[in-house]
Amino acid sequence: MSLVVQKYGGSSVADAEGIKRVAKRIVEAKRNGHQVVAVVSAMGDTTDELIDLAEQVSPIPAGRELDMLLTAGERISMALLAMAIKNLGHEAQSFTGSQAGVITDSVHNKARIIDVTPGRLRASLEEGNIAIVAGFQGVSQDSKDITTLGRGGSDTTAVALAAALDADVCEIYTDVDGVFTADPRVVKKAKKIDWISFEDMLELAASGSKVLLHRCVEYARRYNIPIHVRSSFSGLPGTWVSNEPQGDQNVEHAIISGVAHDVSEAKVTVVGVPDKPGEAAHIFRAVAEAEINIDMIVQNVSAASTGLTDISFTLPKAEGKKATAALEKIKATVGYDSLRYDDQIAKISLVGAGMKTNPGVTAQFFEALSDAGVNIELISTSEIRISVVTRADDVNEAVRAVHTSFGLDSDSDEAVVYGGTGR
Amino acid sequence: MSLVVQKYGGSSVADAEGIKRVAKRIVEAKRNGHQVVAVVSAMGDTTDELIDLAEQVSPIPAGRELDMLLTAGERISMALLAMAIKNLGHEAQSFTGSQAGVITDSVHNKARIIDVTPGRLRASLEEGNIAIVAGFQGVSQDSKDITTLGRGGSDTTAVALAAALDADVCEIYTDVDGVFTADPRVVKKAKKIDWISFEDMLELAASGSKVLLHRCVEYARRYNIPIHVRSSFSGLPGTWVSNEPQGDQNVEHAIISGVAHDVSEAKVTVVGVPDKPGEAAHIFRAVAEAEINIDMIVQNVSAASTGLTDISFTLPKAEGKKATAALEKIKATVGYDSLRYDDQIAKISLVGAGMKTNPGVTAQFFEALSDAGVNIELISTSEIRISVVTRADDVNEAVRAVHTSFGLDSDSDEAVVYGGTGR
Repeated sequence: MSLVVQKYGGSSVADAEGIKRVAKRIVEAKRNGHQVVAVVSAMGDTTDELIDLAEQVSPIPAGRELDMLLTAGERISMALLAMAIKNLGHEAQSFTGSQAGVITDSVHNKARIIDVTPGRLRASLEEGNIAIVAGFQGVSQDSKDITTLGRGGSDTTAVALAAALDADVCEIYTDVDGVFTADPRVVKKAKKIDWISFEDMLELAASGSKVLLHRCVEYARRYNIPIHVRSSFSGLPGTWVSNEPQGDQNVEHAIISGVAHDVSEAKVTVVGVPDKPGEAAHIFRAVAEAEINIDMIVQNVSAASTGLTDISFTLPKAEGKKATAALEKIKATVGYDSLRYDDQIAKISLVGAGMKTNPGVTAQFFEALSDAGVNIELISTSEIRISVVTRADDVNEAVRAVHTSFGLDSDSDEAVVYGGTGR
Repeated sequence: MSLVVQKYGGSSVADAEGIKRVAKRIVEAKRNGHQVVAVVSAMGDTTDELIDLAEQVSPIPAGRELDMLLTAGERISMALLAMAIKNLGHEAQSFTGSQAGVITDSVHNKARIIDVTPGRLRASLEEGNIAIVAGFQGVSQDSKDITTLGRGGSDTTAVALAAALDADVCEIYTDVDGVFTADPRVVKKAKKIDWISFEDMLELAASGSKVLLHRCVEYARRYNIPIHVRSSFSGLPGTWVSNEPQGDQNVEHAIISGVAHDVSEAKVTVVGVPDKPGEAAHIFRAVAEAEINIDMIVQNVSAASTGLTDISFTLPKAEGKKATAALEKIKATVGYDSLRYDDQIAKISLVGAGMKTNPGVTAQFFEALSDAGVNIELISTSEIRISVVTRADDVNEAVRAVHTSFGLDSDSDEAVVYGGTGR
């Protein structure tokens, strides 16, 4: 008997109707002869509402207590889902992260899974039950305190349980039909991707695609768990993420997987840095010590006449203030001229394993941007990705131009996205 | 160092402001040099809202899953309360029923506590923390499933923890100032009782007083834990419930503790029952098998001419239908004439250990009712209680007349009740 792990996000279980619809979908999988473990997030806006309550009683809620609070959210959705399934005549049991054996480190609010001991789940499945598991939460190995996994934690829960239970597939149900060649809200002709490799998916996730989080894909790649991202509203086949395409999975767009964009970053430029050994290290040590995650880094060659160079990097807008404050502190010791902060930027990335063996890709990418009149401010590349920074105002046009240039546009006039519309 | 267990009900922690007020009260006890364990219910109407959600997905929610669902309520309030306390500069940790060691049987929705193993609480207290514990919930000994204790379960949690931790007192904070000589909404001159024995409190609770539930008082009596019922709004001394009054506890009203009334019951009369051995047993076995809790039972002497008698009993209105259905089924075998169902009744009870040694109490009680023009339909007595059933319409007048007759009226014109008014 095959074992399927399914994950349903908060928008899929936002109300009683949503829960009943999800219950039917789960029962369908059970009727098709699978053992089913369903991982569920908190209903709709529950998590945000709980955070709001926490902020009303304490400006800086304690991590341990915030985790205790937030885990109430999945407790509600999982119990309701189990009831709804039993009401359809099937046996179901709900399990907290702790009961399901999701063991984490002790870093509250962003714990990492360090072990999964799914004994109770296995026993429940063997008894013929559908197992419902709270996503996003676990229990710390050392203190036995309740922990949460941070943003996108429920996807990671699902993949981790799939790995521990040796599941055949991990199905991530969401409010869109799968992973698209570009954001369908920007590119109307974006196409759903039938299959994508773990590597390309990791690059897309790192470049602004929000369907799957980087961390979850990384976990799935490590344990080689195929992910099937699909809509909980339409029920159509979605996007498979795995090592190799299987059977009829469409791989015609193997050169380029998609175009991602990201408007959540800002750019910091350190102007007039003396071009001598150790200066860059000095700058980035200061930024690292402020616990800021930076993304792209670009250093231009220095002008021979001045012996000064400019260093630019991008980072999440939310961390801009912290970064500039950290850099102001070392202005005297580094001896740079000035700082520039710019949050009106966008990052556009082209991702595809095919570019390794197709040297013309970079040139075509830049030409497409140029033809669209889009100016490039920074460039950074990996083996299977090219990213550029442009003005934020140009982002939609730039994405569309690149999408068309690489032949990614679908034949139909508009991408069919069932997200939310089916409710 | 003394150890205090405090319990705060849902109305005390109904919103962020309530939680912050309760946090201050807890910190005050800590500052006064006590170790503090605070048991907390779910915020305001949370439990009812969760039950409503459950009914939307399933007409008969499964017990195990309903318990999982409902326990989310205290999880939210206890985490917020711990945060609010930490925000006042004191250390606090929240614990679920399971983490606090509240071990129960496996009867979902109305589990009984069978053991308390408060090792984690003790360790947390020793570290100097204030321990916040979810009321109303536990974990089953056999299946390790989450259970709930049923109505008034948080009070029982508090008393059980007080017993297991050998606390000096269990303080039950509520939205009224304590136990009154009668319901202050009915009798404006009702007085707050400073001290009352476990026995009298048990009778009051069984007779309709809602401040403390019978089960919680019973538990406290068994382990000899003094209960202090008081208002979380006013902070004034409330009512002590214990074996013996202590120090300055006022015991001037030792003959009669109070007058309780109850309009939640209905009366069933089985008319024309053959007056021969075994008939009453037959009737009450049928009622018991339908799992109906009956309260008063009265059988009149049979009329010699007919050899028939009437048997009346009272029961919760909610169980009226079930009871009459069960009795209809045995009509032929018992051979009674007819059934009468009456839900327009009230029960009025006079409670006080003093009546054991004051034979005039019963006569005075009946005279007071008679002077007020109130007709008595049924009478039942225990060693320290007399109860009568009257028309529901007469209840307020009857309670006031009895209260005045036994000198329970306070000197001031109106009882000062802080419940809710302080919010």
